[in-house]
Amino acid sequence: MTGFAKDFPILDKEVYGKQLVYLDNAATTQKPNSVIDTISDFYKTDYSNIHRGVHYLSERSSEKYEEARKKVSDFIGARNPGEVTFTAGTTDAINQVARSLEPSLKGNEVLVTGVEHHSNIVPWQMAGAKLRAIQMDEDCNLLLDSIDITKETKLIAISHVSNVLGSVNDIKKITEIAKDHDVPVLVDAAQSIQHLPLDVKNIGCDFLAASGHKMYADTGVGMLYTSDRFSDLMPAKGGGGMVDKVSLEKTTYQEPPLRYEAGTPHIAGAISMGAAIDYMQKRGLDNIEKHESDVYSYARDRLLEMDNVTVYGNTDRMCGSISFNLDQVHHYDAGLIMDKMGVAVRTGHHCAQPLMRSFAIEGTVRASFALYNTKEDVDRLIEGIEKVEMMYT
Amino acid sequence: MTGFAKDFPILDKEVYGKQLVYLDNAATTQKPNSVIDTISDFYKTDYSNIHRGVHYLSERSSEKYEEARKKVSDFIGARNPGEVTFTAGTTDAINQVARSLEPSLKGNEVLVTGVEHHSNIVPWQMAGAKLRAIQMDEDCNLLLDSIDITKETKLIAISHVSNVLGSVNDIKKITEIAKDHDVPVLVDAAQSIQHLPLDVKNIGCDFLAASGHKMYADTGVGMLYTSDRFSDLMPAKGGGGMVDKVSLEKTTYQEPPLRYEAGTPHIAGAISMGAAIDYMQKRGLDNIEKHESDVYSYARDRLLEMDNVTVYGNTDRMCGSISFNLDQVHHYDAGLIMDKMGVAVRTGHHCAQPLMRSFAIEGTVRASFALYNTKEDVDRLIEGIEKVEMMYT
Repeated sequence: MTGFAKDFPILDKEVYGKQLVYLDNAATTQKPNSVIDTISDFYKTDYSNIHRGVHYLSERSSEKYEEARKKVSDFIGARNPGEVTFTAGTTDAINQVARSLEPSLKGNEVLVTGVEHHSNIVPWQMAGAKLRAIQMDEDCNLLLDSIDITKETKLIAISHVSNVLGSVNDIKKITEIAKDHDVPVLVDAAQSIQHLPLDVKNIGCDFLAASGHKMYADTGVGMLYTSDRFSDLMPAKGGGGMVDKVSLEKTTYQEPPLRYEAGTPHIAGAISMGAAIDYMQKRGLDNIEKHESDVYSYARDRLLEMDNVTVYGNTDRMCGSISFNLDQVHHYDAGLIMDKMGVAVRTGHHCAQPLMRSFAIEGTVRASFALYNTKEDVDRLIEGIEKVEMMYT
Repeated sequence: MTGFAKDFPILDKEVYGKQLVYLDNAATTQKPNSVIDTISDFYKTDYSNIHRGVHYLSERSSEKYEEARKKVSDFIGARNPGEVTFTAGTTDAINQVARSLEPSLKGNEVLVTGVEHHSNIVPWQMAGAKLRAIQMDEDCNLLLDSIDITKETKLIAISHVSNVLGSVNDIKKITEIAKDHDVPVLVDAAQSIQHLPLDVKNIGCDFLAASGHKMYADTGVGMLYTSDRFSDLMPAKGGGGMVDKVSLEKTTYQEPPLRYEAGTPHIAGAISMGAAIDYMQKRGLDNIEKHESDVYSYARDRLLEMDNVTVYGNTDRMCGSISFNLDQVHHYDAGLIMDKMGVAVRTGHHCAQPLMRSFAIEGTVRASFALYNTKEDVDRLIEGIEKVEMMYT
């Protein structure tokens, strides 16, 4: 192991006698020692519930939790930490927005794309909205000039980076178009926050959701950025900590961010997100981006060179994930064989059935990258594919 | 430290030069080494996303996650693990039920008690239900004979144990009454799962919610038991993992438990709940219950002996929490002084404003106990109260 990988204890593992090559990072990333230790140390030294206690541990925990909020807020360029709410993850965050906006969405329309993850489809359907997809060309570039916002369009909800293709959508351009029609924009940043610099002020979005576990932090935690201009939204969940006065007849709510955090939050998880940001910043965001870009480009080039391999999507800017199929082998079988060679890839529809349908396929093999992956990992991936092909021809 | 406390590293801590006495367990419990190590080891050895991968780590993670579900299911006496859903906590669980039952609750009535935590009040209000409280006597015993179920009563939602008083409600009797009227019952077990044996089949409830962090496990995780007879409820959240077929027009759902777990769950948290159950079972549930009962009774007796101290609530069966006030000292000031003596108690309304209002007070001091507390801790609490009294007289 060289470079970043030495910080991640699990990457030292052997699988079926082979050194593990973990290429399932769009599903979840591994954790560096500093994040794992932050969680342990927190429970051994400072843990308590937050906000509502006057005792020492409660104050320590509250401080650490709010420091983590500040780190996330700075990391995404929010105006102030009050715009950042900790959630249970991206899916939970999007569901919360869908719930809060339900009165305006019901019977109206949410504009999405054809590459969305189910978590950016189903919540809007549950809120009673119709979905329409922005058109894209056959390479999966969004045709932004074709965006047609009608009186029924009450939200644009769009992934920053596709979890299947790695295509990067021009979310700034989309928010500019949306602003002309005064339509709010939600960005699903689950596949971008770990790869690309984010600045919500510059992007101009109203909501942005991301997950901790996909950016080297704990499971069960995520974040929702809610622009100040939505500071009086109806909260999606009720409970302790988010209320002002409660009677059996009537309840009034706190201001954000507490308003949107009902019940005991995932305190350790939030703090682990702060630790993950610390880790990335210490390693250098520019270094990480350059390294990832090199490895990703190398992987695409190697895959595109292969006969009998179809790579899906080819947009102006890409990162993170690459989806492909072997012409003669079912994606599931390919994944199983590569696993036995120590190469962990994901197979299936990747929670993006509408996109699969548009390619008229059931699934793909997906290799997805994180900062610890190297060109040697790509070589192992290619060897794995060659082995699969040999077995099937 | 003797007994259980040695398993909990944070309890070795000194606060302001005094050995920590942690009596804020109704807010959250500390974590034993075995739970902390389970989380670390999981991330160092077996971590991946679950269910949707064919590779080694994904299978390992999925196995461990489903083992945890089985442990929780057995621990509460469910018929099968499919009745157990992992949630972000009790509050999230209750909000999910409120969301799923909203069509039947809206404009109708939920029967609660006057001792409920806000998390068992606000979600029902958000679902459009009116709330009515079961009557209780001045000692806070529920007057079960007075229960009046009308055609408008669509749910009984009731805490098993009050987070303020420690009063234990006779939930089995309540479910029996509810059954005669075919009204479902939700039990908020946030303050009972760590203290009392639970058997949902015997209780006969339809829903039961609890939190991991109050039973020695991680933050950000909880559980919702949903009786098989509600296996076709509309899920409260949409996203990956809970769907069968998705198109932009229409979505169909999986069977439980996947149906109710949208998005990547708190995998590490769920596994930590399994580890917490392992810990309690290894230490012996009977031992724990007897030890806790001894310490709790001792604390009540000591507090009731004190002049100038008012203890709230006095029901047939009690555990966990004791709320009191000093006649001459504001609860907040009392808490602050006790903190400086190393005794961590909570002060305030404890997210139970309706109960505070019924006592015509703004808040209490609350001492709440877990398995690691001892009679020596109670002595330190009493010393603290005596010190506060001395300072104010």
